[in-house]
Amino acid sequence: MAERIPVAVIGAAGFGGALGAMLVDRHPSLDLTAVTARSDAGARHDVLYPRYGVGLTMEEFDPDRIAEQAQAALVAYPHKAAAPAVAALRERGLKVVDLSADFRLDRERYERWYQPHEAPELIGEAVYGLPEAHRDEIRRADLVAGPGCNSTAALLALLPLKELATDVVVDIKTGVSGAGREATAETHYVSATENVNPYKTEGHRHSAELEQELGGGVRITFVAHLVPMDQGLLASCYVTTEPHLSREEARALFERAYADEPFVDLIDSPPHTADVRASNRCRVYVTATADRVLAFAAIDNLWKGAAGQAVQDLNLMLGLPETEGLT
Amino acid sequence: MAERIPVAVIGAAGFGGALGAMLVDRHPSLDLTAVTARSDAGARHDVLYPRYGVGLTMEEFDPDRIAEQAQAALVAYPHKAAAPAVAALRERGLKVVDLSADFRLDRERYERWYQPHEAPELIGEAVYGLPEAHRDEIRRADLVAGPGCNSTAALLALLPLKELATDVVVDIKTGVSGAGREATAETHYVSATENVNPYKTEGHRHSAELEQELGGGVRITFVAHLVPMDQGLLASCYVTTEPHLSREEARALFERAYADEPFVDLIDSPPHTADVRASNRCRVYVTATADRVLAFAAIDNLWKGAAGQAVQDLNLMLGLPETEGLT
Amino acid sequence: MAERIPVAVIGAAGFGGALGAMLVDRHPSLDLTAVTARSDAGARHDVLYPRYGVGLTMEEFDPDRIAEQAQAALVAYPHKAAAPAVAALRERGLKVVDLSADFRLDRERYERWYQPHEAPELIGEAVYGLPEAHRDEIRRADLVAGPGCNSTAALLALLPLKELATDVVVDIKTGVSGAGREATAETHYVSATENVNPYKTEGHRHSAELEQELGGGVRITFVAHLVPMDQGLLASCYVTTEPHLSREEARALFERAYADEPFVDLIDSPPHTADVRASNRCRVYVTATADRVLAFAAIDNLWKGAAGQAVQDLNLMLGLPETEGLT
Amino acid sequence: MAERIPVAVIGAAGFGGALGAMLVDRHPSLDLTAVTARSDAGARHDVLYPRYGVGLTMEEFDPDRIAEQAQAALVAYPHKAAAPAVAALRERGLKVVDLSADFRLDRERYERWYQPHEAPELIGEAVYGLPEAHRDEIRRADLVAGPGCNSTAALLALLPLKELATDVVVDIKTGVSGAGREATAETHYVSATENVNPYKTEGHRHSAELEQELGGGVRITFVAHLVPMDQGLLASCYVTTEPHLSREEARALFERAYADEPFVDLIDSPPHTADVRASNRCRVYVTATADRVLAFAAIDNLWKGAAGQAVQDLNLMLGLPETEGLT
Repeated sequence: MAERIPVAVIGAAGFGGALGAMLVDRHPSLDLTAVTARSDAGARHDVLYPRYGVGLTMEEFDPDRIAEQAQAALVAYPHKAAAPAVAALRERGLKVVDLSADFRLDRERYERWYQPHEAPELIGEAVYGLPEAHRDEIRRADLVAGPGCNSTAALLALLPLKELATDVVVDIKTGVSGAGREATAETHYVSATENVNPYKTEGHRHSAELEQELGGGVRITFVAHLVPMDQGLLASCYVTTEPHLSREEARALFERAYADEPFVDLIDSPPHTADVRASNRCRVYVTATADRVLAFAAIDNLWKGAAGQAVQDLNLMLGLPETEGLT
Repeated sequence: MAERIPVAVIGAAGFGGALGAMLVDRHPSLDLTAVTARSDAGARHDVLYPRYGVGLTMEEFDPDRIAEQAQAALVAYPHKAAAPAVAALRERGLKVVDLSADFRLDRERYERWYQPHEAPELIGEAVYGLPEAHRDEIRRADLVAGPGCNSTAALLALLPLKELATDVVVDIKTGVSGAGREATAETHYVSATENVNPYKTEGHRHSAELEQELGGGVRITFVAHLVPMDQGLLASCYVTTEPHLSREEARALFERAYADEPFVDLIDSPPHTADVRASNRCRVYVTATADRVLAFAAIDNLWKGAAGQAVQDLNLMLGLPETEGLT
Repeated sequence: MAERIPVAVIGAAGFGGALGAMLVDRHPSLDLTAVTARSDAGARHDVLYPRYGVGLTMEEFDPDRIAEQAQAALVAYPHKAAAPAVAALRERGLKVVDLSADFRLDRERYERWYQPHEAPELIGEAVYGLPEAHRDEIRRADLVAGPGCNSTAALLALLPLKELATDVVVDIKTGVSGAGREATAETHYVSATENVNPYKTEGHRHSAELEQELGGGVRITFVAHLVPMDQGLLASCYVTTEPHLSREEARALFERAYADEPFVDLIDSPPHTADVRASNRCRVYVTATADRVLAFAAIDNLWKGAAGQAVQDLNLMLGLPETEGLT
Repeated sequence: MAERIPVAVIGAAGFGGALGAMLVDRHPSLDLTAVTARSDAGARHDVLYPRYGVGLTMEEFDPDRIAEQAQAALVAYPHKAAAPAVAALRERGLKVVDLSADFRLDRERYERWYQPHEAPELIGEAVYGLPEAHRDEIRRADLVAGPGCNSTAALLALLPLKELATDVVVDIKTGVSGAGREATAETHYVSATENVNPYKTEGHRHSAELEQELGGGVRITFVAHLVPMDQGLLASCYVTTEPHLSREEARALFERAYADEPFVDLIDSPPHTADVRASNRCRVYVTATADRVLAFAAIDNLWKGAAGQAVQDLNLMLGLPETEGLT
């Protein structure tokens, strides 16, 4: 049996990082050698997340120690905090998948939507980690930026229409885990149950990813909604194309695009997020009305929308089978 | 104290009719004199719905008996079954609010989306029961067609833009009670929890109501989604107007439209369905991006989307204060 | 029309106090003249709780001002913080219903389960506010201690057996609102959904109330469990009696006890918490096996378990009809 | 690589059988060769259960064909329907794990709680499939009766106390999947959400399993409650022992009993069902008050409470590692 590749997960106490730790831990070709946390350092991972069964104690982040222990790292810090950690690990030669927004956008876009960039010199080498769009670049990359969960679903619903779309309305429905582990008024059970609400109606940062990936010619309206579920995300995309496509024409484009994709299922009826829960799959459905193409994509926001896709990226970067550890 | 007006609820075993029975029962100026049910006839209403506290036994529907007992009726049958019951009650002189689709549409639209109409002679006298659009007609009507829940929310988000809108995407999120009381694979708890899915993506009948009420000039795309909640409905509307409106311009239109509406709250932040649960209120929010006006309306699908609005209609038809029994 | 009695709600930002404010606000014989809050002072109540529709701004607590504005107060502070506020209001002559634990127990019990008492001189005048057990005393009281939600349900399941019970196991299932408005790891939607867990298995303070109210002769085992719902509480009580009772004998005791109780429904099948949601009712069911009497009581923890019962107490204290404002 | 053992799943359209099909399908040493269904025969399994990914078409049950295709079978029919199917497969020499109640009880107990037995001649050879109690017998068995979900959790909480317990109250909280796939009034989302209720308060069949497994000396009170979650089950057990045990003494018994159990985790704080979701683990906690030992066990009702445990049994029967395919 081949040596397993040592991997660290930085920021393993949050929902995305915790799942990433579990996925690396159970991965046949990877060896989870270290997990770190900021406020939860010192705690065993499986006390916080018993069902993930990761028996390591979370450490403070020390890039030198991580460099001794690991050849690759999955960084699951919030944006802004992520960039310096990524830079420190890249300096020490580790391959990195970063789950934050810090390396998803070109500098101009990033600084417009977020803040001054903490490690702008690395932006050039970062690859946007959506394998369905950038597989070959990811294979060659040392730094991959994991796409946002909303963007992942929206792009998988939209990419086959990229050349023809002129106008897109993206209406996202996301589960509460997407809001992160922090206990807030919004994530309180009593607020979130029996409720749906739109948020960030005046512009969501994830729309910047869509603009960048779809190219300049398409007008994008993007609104996210919080729905009472734990994990799961649905992107409903209402697309004007030039020329207008019939249902069959639209479907043919999707069939071509996704014929060989290991994690995208083109299905014959509207997707249910429950059908992709705790899996790295994306279920996509496309149809058309007299006016528009309608495309829907369902993912688990923590899996294909975050940690699962990060491991898919890691597999590509490390020359492993793309689906390994994810099925 | 004035005599209370005797009212019957036909089809009181379903979710909408059951709530209607409760609302009539507790109404200061109405007297609930009879409730009927089809398969549950013979059962006490408060055995089926203990929290509504209606202590009547549900009878088989007999229009002659109802005519002896009541001056007005709320009919909560499914479409197609409703029309003959409504006709029988109208013949006997009762004022009727019908919750089904049977009298919402002109005959051509109805027969395109549903089936041959069972009582076409009554279509002409029926008024579409959205008080915010047809208050004076409802006051004079003997037959009012309660709007669909999806249409109610969508129209309240769209009506102030009616003259300017050229294209509308309506993305509905509705709770499971909207699917009715019948136990099906879709309404099973295990199917509905931790899930979101679009449905009727190839055309939802409620879009016919929007077309009719908004007029011919506007292109409508309409998709409904099921979300894991009991009661609640959010309409997210993405509107292209001619000319394009700023946020302030759009807001001014809504302020004008809803300044005196007793049940519409124009609010300053995105609406939450939980904030209108078990109430007849509609919370509306409007904003704009560079390209579109975005309007959101949250209602309780069983209240403002069905039985609450029916009582609001009844109040108007009977010369009672519009909000009586609903606050 | 009679003058309405001015009432203040102290601590109206928490779940119990907020509902209390709404109930006083809508009460036909009471006038909500002031609401206070600690960290949320300065905010309008209906911004925090839109569905309650209380249009007052929450003030800092100033007992002199409250004494100018109100003749009675509902205090909804956490225990320990409540006692000084209650004392300040009692000094100024207001009648008070306190929702905290501070005046529920005799001093010895209180200091064993909680901490040194902040206003021990008032303990003697406080009446335990369960009308089904202490109605006449409540009528004469100036200070009433609202029972805990768990205790309310458990006692309503147990009181008819008080003279005969020798051993009781109380297994409580409570919704998340019972844990309060504070956002914590436990109240995070992602933690609470799709989950059940026991808590405080080594002794819950509410068992002290049971001991006190049931008398010394009965052995009590008490465990509470958190279940994924917003509002609602079920007490399942497994009771050994001396002598053992048949189902019919047990039922006869309950019928006698609850024949005239306005808020207790003795029913013929196991109670569902959903049937008492947003109501002040308690649904009770009693049966027996060969060995034990089984008694179940369902309430809404925020209504009959807190604010609803407080208003019921207030009605009694103020000489109003007991059910006024609660139906 | 060793030949994989061909296994059929009979009744794969229900929740338990469907999960069983998935577990056999993904099992490294088993080969899922056939799935059958009664009303869903002819449908592909992964159309009904997309997330399980079983790409077989469900057949009508034909024991001869099954015998050609498989050496072992997992039968997931309802009780009464199961016995003849099991008999047919045993006649043809297959090893069988039956998920129904048909072979869990001795004939006298079965016919008291259920109905006349359909295959009484097989009762003698059936082993009660709780590996923690009957591992060696299961290894030698050709027919194993999978324990009920309630019984599994309760027994894992009680077995270490078996010799000392004199009286037990078992209070079960179970998710809605435990009620099966049939769409009923009880399993409707609108009924089940925001609700808790006891059911079968006059005697639950699963208590017969407890009596049989715990022996005659212990008095058992058993009540199950439905709670709003999909998968998950908690047994709260209130145990009188002779002599009474301290927390430490009770814990020592549990440590001894479960030291080497691969699927039982003895933990230091009350168990959460969410922590065992979609896993075959049981988390157990034991403590004591002055009067009683309190023991809690959390499982996933479909995994350790049904299909997962069935595969654990199958592993034992077939000489495979006990945990294979389950971690």
